[in-house]
Amino acid sequence: MHVEVINTGTELLLGHVLNTHLRFLAEALFPLGLRIGRQVTVPDGLVIREALVEAAARAEILLVTGGLGPTTDDITRDVVADWLGLRLVHDEEIMRAIAERFARRGLALSARIGLQALRPPEATVLPNEHGTAPGLYLPPTARSPHLFLLPGPPRELHPMFTASVLPILQKVLPPRPELAMRNYRTAGLGESAVEELVGAPLLALGLEVGYCARPGEVDLRLIGSAEALARAEKIVAAQLGAQLVSRDQSSLEKVIVDRLSARGETLATAESCTGGLLAHRVTNVPGASAVFLEGFVTYANEAKTRALGVDAALLRAHGAVSREVAAAMAEGARTAAGVDHALATTGIAGPGGGSDAKPLGTVFIALATKLGPTTVEQHRFPTDRETFKDLTAQTALDLLRRRLG
Amino acid sequence: MHVEVINTGTELLLGHVLNTHLRFLAEALFPLGLRIGRQVTVPDGLVIREALVEAAARAEILLVTGGLGPTTDDITRDVVADWLGLRLVHDEEIMRAIAERFARRGLALSARIGLQALRPPEATVLPNEHGTAPGLYLPPTARSPHLFLLPGPPRELHPMFTASVLPILQKVLPPRPELAMRNYRTAGLGESAVEELVGAPLLALGLEVGYCARPGEVDLRLIGSAEALARAEKIVAAQLGAQLVSRDQSSLEKVIVDRLSARGETLATAESCTGGLLAHRVTNVPGASAVFLEGFVTYANEAKTRALGVDAALLRAHGAVSREVAAAMAEGARTAAGVDHALATTGIAGPGGGSDAKPLGTVFIALATKLGPTTVEQHRFPTDRETFKDLTAQTALDLLRRRLG
Repeated sequence: MHVEVINTGTELLLGHVLNTHLRFLAEALFPLGLRIGRQVTVPDGLVIREALVEAAARAEILLVTGGLGPTTDDITRDVVADWLGLRLVHDEEIMRAIAERFARRGLALSARIGLQALRPPEATVLPNEHGTAPGLYLPPTARSPHLFLLPGPPRELHPMFTASVLPILQKVLPPRPELAMRNYRTAGLGESAVEELVGAPLLALGLEVGYCARPGEVDLRLIGSAEALARAEKIVAAQLGAQLVSRDQSSLEKVIVDRLSARGETLATAESCTGGLLAHRVTNVPGASAVFLEGFVTYANEAKTRALGVDAALLRAHGAVSREVAAAMAEGARTAAGVDHALATTGIAGPGGGSDAKPLGTVFIALATKLGPTTVEQHRFPTDRETFKDLTAQTALDLLRRRLG
Repeated sequence: MHVEVINTGTELLLGHVLNTHLRFLAEALFPLGLRIGRQVTVPDGLVIREALVEAAARAEILLVTGGLGPTTDDITRDVVADWLGLRLVHDEEIMRAIAERFARRGLALSARIGLQALRPPEATVLPNEHGTAPGLYLPPTARSPHLFLLPGPPRELHPMFTASVLPILQKVLPPRPELAMRNYRTAGLGESAVEELVGAPLLALGLEVGYCARPGEVDLRLIGSAEALARAEKIVAAQLGAQLVSRDQSSLEKVIVDRLSARGETLATAESCTGGLLAHRVTNVPGASAVFLEGFVTYANEAKTRALGVDAALLRAHGAVSREVAAAMAEGARTAAGVDHALATTGIAGPGGGSDAKPLGTVFIALATKLGPTTVEQHRFPTDRETFKDLTAQTALDLLRRRLG
């Protein structure tokens, strides 16, 4: 079936917001055997109708994002109703969900908010768990294909897609041969290194192989028969062994929290250059409080000394960005928090602060653990400040993951 | 002049590569007074011609990316020549540049590489400093607008755009009335509340008004004449006053770091439920080390007592998620770190842990400051764990921003 996507939003065409919908939708549709044939971005305005007419002439499934909110530039619902000659009626149930959401947050309902409760009677409502405007599904007519109107914000769109759009698509799609998918997550290797290790033998199994790289990690996506995937599992385990974080795209931090929970062990972090990102990532995992007791963000040297007991003489002798101070931070955090494992980071994130001896991007990562002697790794990530923090946090978490075995 | 963009590339429609071209091109064109009216992504194939014909019927400037390389799926050059009835001739100068590039890298030239030296005689060559395939510019004809064929990889496209595309556009553009743009960032109001406060009077000034909402903040985008923007400034200041974070989309954390820097004041954070996110956001700002001395991520109660001096009896009497403990955390962090201001968060992020008295999403945010008595705010954000952290961190930072005045 031919699928098209229309993204509405002047902010996308002005470049104020990066359009990530195409990637998300493409990846979400792929397991159903669907590929997007064309995508168009149009501004908030009547050109939306033009785009609808053009796409409807080609597509059997049409996904439209954006323009469902309460402000005057949100006109998708009206344009669609006008195009297809549909009435919009006030839906009590939508209104109740919106009112409840506002009440929970202690916010007052304004008049315009109610516009989001309008829908054509023909539409199926796709509930929005993370925002007010629900999505709408309109079954095909003589003039229109399967039509999905979806919210623009990704954190509203993504859960709605999984909870409401996929089940509808599964019902309307013709039966097809069973394809399975597996998503491995790896850390510590670049995309081309992963491909060199496993690409050729996996392709030889007749699998479709995809790679997705982010700072410090690469996801490996395999699609094919269950039998081919079982054979692939052996190749992946043999070739990627220690670099394999999870077999279900679980994050590094989730794998660590789960593993520590199972072992009944505890963790602390002592961060200089990552500035809280390590603790933030660990505490994003539900249940982290069972294993994560304390984080120290010791940006100032005085804090390193007072909170972690790092010897001021050591700081003077080696500087805050050094192997010795990283080890002392990790050991100090482990003792102070009374935990089984402690990770520490100290480095030069930039944009200022590098020297010839310790250039921008230099970082030391230490792990103090009851499992044995303290380990310190030196790395260099000469990049922008936020990517530096991402790469350092990723490398630190992976150091712990590998040590936990 | 009406501008359209065609992005070619099957990898974009499969979601394997995130399409960042639209954002780059939009931002690069805006200073010329040009806005992109429509953007379309099509796969590598003959559908490119369809997209060209459609866009050419509307656009006065058409930018096409991708499909100029040496592989079999690179067909943009051929499709354009076929559409406009142009011959392709071998260009010696392009070939010499490609050969030199390969020689520098010690690579052998393959037969297909030479295809990149083909061009219509009518085209202006746009040199590629970061890759082999040059871009091409075709002046308007009866059937086609100003047509730019540009490479797909961003690191080739971006420098080529600046060096070669912008100068051509500057020559062909008519003199124009100056349009300016202003991007305000607000915190603490929902999208519809912002619109209710300023929407009607801003539209009455003849401005184009846009809104973009994220957890806890809304951006307000105004486009129009300098005179209308000057009048808008007064409306925005009067109506949004305290909620106005910045006039240039600067983040809340950047505004805080800049303001504290200017005042020569210092900050610490004491986090329970935000788990390091507050510190992470503040330390994302270059220069944060001048004002941010220390962060405490006191997840365990013992850590709250030891690191922040929160009385164990207070924790027993009121529970960790309470007004009293939030205040004690902020005051303890301020004393321990020896800073001018300290923010604290304690709440129930979920998914588990709520009760009737303190339901899921309950959070207390405290600010201890040399500017006066400690403030504690109670909020409720009943949402997913990560959005809860986002909203809490946002609200905490905004509490400090408003207090700094």
